[in-house]
Amino acid sequence: MILAENKKKGNDEIMKICPRAEDFSKWYLDVISAADLAEHAPVRGCMIIKPCGYALWEMIQSVLDSMIKDIGVQNAYFPLLIPEEFFKREAEHVEGFSPELAVVTHAGGKKLEEPLVIRPTSETIIYDAFSRWIQSYRDLPMTINQWANVVRWELRPRLFLRTTEFLWQEGHTAHATKEESEAYALMILYKLYERLAEDYLAMPVLTGVKSESEKFAGAFRTYCIEALMQDGKSLQAGTSHDMSDNFSKPFNVMYLNDEGKKTYVYQTSWGVSTRIIGALIMSHSDDKGLVLPPKIAPVQVVITPISKSQDDQVAIKSRELKERLKNFRTNLDSRDLRPGEKYYEWEKKGIPVRIELGPKDLEKNSCVLVRRDTSEKIICSLDEVETRVGDLLKDIQDSLFKKALARREETNQNVEDWDGLEKAVEKGGYVYAFWCGGDKCELKIKEQLKATTRCLPFDQPDEAGEHKCVCCGKKAPGKRWAIAKAY
Amino acid sequence: MILAENKKKGNDEIMKICPRAEDFSKWYLDVISAADLAEHAPVRGCMIIKPCGYALWEMIQSVLDSMIKDIGVQNAYFPLLIPEEFFKREAEHVEGFSPELAVVTHAGGKKLEEPLVIRPTSETIIYDAFSRWIQSYRDLPMTINQWANVVRWELRPRLFLRTTEFLWQEGHTAHATKEESEAYALMILYKLYERLAEDYLAMPVLTGVKSESEKFAGAFRTYCIEALMQDGKSLQAGTSHDMSDNFSKPFNVMYLNDEGKKTYVYQTSWGVSTRIIGALIMSHSDDKGLVLPPKIAPVQVVITPISKSQDDQVAIKSRELKERLKNFRTNLDSRDLRPGEKYYEWEKKGIPVRIELGPKDLEKNSCVLVRRDTSEKIICSLDEVETRVGDLLKDIQDSLFKKALARREETNQNVEDWDGLEKAVEKGGYVYAFWCGGDKCELKIKEQLKATTRCLPFDQPDEAGEHKCVCCGKKAPGKRWAIAKAY
Repeated sequence: MILAENKKKGNDEIMKICPRAEDFSKWYLDVISAADLAEHAPVRGCMIIKPCGYALWEMIQSVLDSMIKDIGVQNAYFPLLIPEEFFKREAEHVEGFSPELAVVTHAGGKKLEEPLVIRPTSETIIYDAFSRWIQSYRDLPMTINQWANVVRWELRPRLFLRTTEFLWQEGHTAHATKEESEAYALMILYKLYERLAEDYLAMPVLTGVKSESEKFAGAFRTYCIEALMQDGKSLQAGTSHDMSDNFSKPFNVMYLNDEGKKTYVYQTSWGVSTRIIGALIMSHSDDKGLVLPPKIAPVQVVITPISKSQDDQVAIKSRELKERLKNFRTNLDSRDLRPGEKYYEWEKKGIPVRIELGPKDLEKNSCVLVRRDTSEKIICSLDEVETRVGDLLKDIQDSLFKKALARREETNQNVEDWDGLEKAVEKGGYVYAFWCGGDKCELKIKEQLKATTRCLPFDQPDEAGEHKCVCCGKKAPGKRWAIAKAY
Repeated sequence: MILAENKKKGNDEIMKICPRAEDFSKWYLDVISAADLAEHAPVRGCMIIKPCGYALWEMIQSVLDSMIKDIGVQNAYFPLLIPEEFFKREAEHVEGFSPELAVVTHAGGKKLEEPLVIRPTSETIIYDAFSRWIQSYRDLPMTINQWANVVRWELRPRLFLRTTEFLWQEGHTAHATKEESEAYALMILYKLYERLAEDYLAMPVLTGVKSESEKFAGAFRTYCIEALMQDGKSLQAGTSHDMSDNFSKPFNVMYLNDEGKKTYVYQTSWGVSTRIIGALIMSHSDDKGLVLPPKIAPVQVVITPISKSQDDQVAIKSRELKERLKNFRTNLDSRDLRPGEKYYEWEKKGIPVRIELGPKDLEKNSCVLVRRDTSEKIICSLDEVETRVGDLLKDIQDSLFKKALARREETNQNVEDWDGLEKAVEKGGYVYAFWCGGDKCELKIKEQLKATTRCLPFDQPDEAGEHKCVCCGKKAPGKRWAIAKAY
C-alpha cells in the first residue's frame, strides 16, 4: 500500500493539497508530500527523510549545534546497542521504555547470550561511561551531547511526529549538587530550546514543567517547550530533564568531593528531535503548501527569470542578481519551464522570497519580490535589491512569529469548572485551569476529554484568593495548568 | 575487563606510551588512550568515541560534506532497519554480508513476523526507494548521500579499524549508461577520497582497482584508496564501487529512455568511515603520541602562558595573542598547572603548534613556537606571530605528507618470483608484482604469506616484454599489483 502511494507523480499531474479546514491530518501529509520532505519506508513506522526534508534538519542541527558548543558542551558518540541488563537498573526507566524496545537476539549468525536493545535513549549507556570518567569534583560538571538515531517501536506512526526511528540530539550532564542540575536543566530550556523555537523556527512556545504522569521515565522533573499547532492541538517540541540522583545511584556515578567524601552526582538530560520539523510544518504552512521561516529555510530566495533564452539580458541580469544576493541562500531557477510551473513549485516548497524578473521589469530597472507567507508582490528597484531582500526576510521571520503568537493568544481560555473545561477543550487551544494535582482528576481529563495537562507554564500571573480544582472542586495550588489536546 | 582498563587514570599517574618499535599494536592503542580519542564500550566490538575523537570526525565530516555538496550530491536519511528479504535479492550481496548481520527479531514486546536486520550498508533499502523515485531519463543522474551508523558483527574488534558499529557516509547514485556510472565511481575516488586523504589528512594513497575476490559484495568493480601505515601494512581508507546494473535488476530500478523504452539504470556506491581515523593515527603519530595534520586538527594552536597569575602582563598578552590568532583554531590554556604538564598533554593530543609565552619572552617581545611533528623550537617576534603561525601550519601539513610519501617510496619493492615475494612481504611496504589473475595464486599469497592483493594501481608505467605471474610463473598481464599485509 505504502509503496503504491509513494509512486512518483508524473510531471503533468498536479498534486492537490487538501485544505486545512477540510481535513487537517490529510493536509499535513499533503504538505510533506508536495514539498518532497519525507515518505513512509517499507519498514513499518520508519520514514525516509528526502533531500528537501534533510536539508531542513541540517539547518536545525547547525543552529542547535552552535548553541550547544557555545555553552561548552562537547559532542561524542555512544553505541547504538545497549545490554538489556542496563535498562533494568532504574525501575521507572525500564517500565517506561520496555513496550517500545526493539531487541537484537541474533548476530554474526549466532544467538546472543544476552539480548541487546537498540537505544530508545542513551541515559543508561552514557551514565555507565560517566561512572568510569568521573572521579573527583574536578571532573564536574561533565557536559556531553550526541547526535544520533534512536528507535522506539511505534504503533501509530506519523511522518516526523511519531516514527519508529527518529534523529535527535541528546545532551547528558553531571553536576556536583542538586541546585546545579536543576539550574542547568532550566538553562537548556531557556537558552537553547526556547531560543531555537522562537528565534529561529518562529514558533512561540510555553515553557513549563510537566506533571508527574507526563514526565520522562526515570526523571525527577521534566521541563518542556510546548507549541500550539494551527488545529488548536499542542505539540511537545523539546524536553529537558532534571534527573536528580535517580540514575547516578543505580549506575554508581560518584565523585570525591573537596572533603574527600564519595558523593553521587546530579544529572540532566535533554533532547530535540526530527519531530520539531512536524511542529514547524503545522505552525506556519498554509493551503498552498509549506511555509518556512527565513532563518531556517535551506533556500531563502529563488530567482525566476521570465525568459526562454539562457543568454538574453534577463538571463544575464538574473545571474548578476544571484551573485549580488550571495549573502542570502539564493537559488537561480533557469530551467526551461513555464514561469507558472516554477512559481507553483517554489510555493509548495515554502521558499520565503521569490524574485520575478522579466523584460518588462528590466525596462523599468526593477524586479518583483513575492512573499511566500502573504503572497504580497513588491516592486523593487534593481539598485536596492540586496537591502530590500534582507529587510523582507527579517520582516517575514518576524511576522510569522507574530501571527503564530496572535493565533495562540486568541485561543487562550481560562476555565474554572468541568463544564467550562469540556467546552474549551473541544474548541481547541490552551485551556488554563487550576488542578488539585491528583492522579484521578488527571486521568479523567485524559479519558473523558482526550486531552492532557501539557505543562504548568512558568510565565503566569499569581491569582489571589482560593482556587478550586477544575475536576473535583477541591482546593488547588495557585497556578494554572495548560490543558489541551496534543500530538 | 574492559571496564577496569577504562578506569580513568589519576592526575599524577603519567601514562606511558609503548614505543612503536617494541609493539606497534600496543603503541596504537596507547596513542588513542593518551589522546583520549575513544574506548571500548561494554557491548562487545563497539566503541565510545570520546569528545577528542569525535571532534576529529566532525572535522573530517565537514571537509567531506562540503566536497559532496560541491559535486551536486544531496544528503538524505534512510532507515536503520531493513527487511531481511531485501538482502536476499542480490546473491553475492547476501552471501557477503550474512555472517556479519545483527538481527532484530522482537520489537514492541512481540516477535516480528519478518526479522529486520540493522543496516550493514544501505544499497538495498536505498535502491528500493530509487525504484519509486526514478521514472524517466529526466530523473537521472540521481545522486544521494547519507551520514549514518552501520553495524557489522565483528569478531576481532579494534578501535576505529574494526568495530561492530561504525560511522560513515555512503553515497548512492543512478545513471543512464554504463559509461557514466564507471566515470562517476572514478570521479568520487579522485575528486573526493584521494583529495581528502592527501590534501587534508596528509596521507599519500595508492588509487586503483580491487581484485575480484576483494571487491564489495555485489559490485561489478571496486576502486579504492590504500594508505601505508608506519608498520609497513596497508589500510583501505575508502572505496568507490561501480555497481553496473547488478542491483538495478533485482530492485527493478528502471527509467524510460528518450526513445520511450524501459531501461535498467547503472549505479555507484561509495563510502568513507571512522576507520580513516585509525589510518590517520598510524600514518603520522610518534612515540610521544598523536600527531595531527593542521588542516584536520580540531585545535591547531595552543597558547601556554608561563605564569601563575591570571592578570599579569603574560596573561594579558596571552589573551591578546588568542584574539590575534582567531583565524586559526586556537586554544588558550590558562589552567593553574605546571607548564611541563601542559606541554605533555598537548603533545599527546597532537596539537600542531604550541606557543610558549613567559616573562623572559615578553622582555624580548617574542614567543616560542614549538612544532609537534619535529619538536623544533622557533623564536618568533610577537609582531609577526600571525604570519609565522600561518606559515608554520602550512609547513607542517606539507612536511607530514612528504614524510609519509618518502616512507612509502622507500619501502616499495618490485619482485619477479615467489622467493622475492616472500622476502619482500616479510619486510613490509608495498610489493609490486605481476599476477596471472587466477584465484589459486591469490589464495596462495593469502594463506602462505598472510598478505593480499591491495589493488592494481592506476598510476604505473607500462613495462615492455613478456610478464610472468609471481606465483605460478604463467603469463601475466602487463601491470603490477600492489601486494601487502593489511589491516
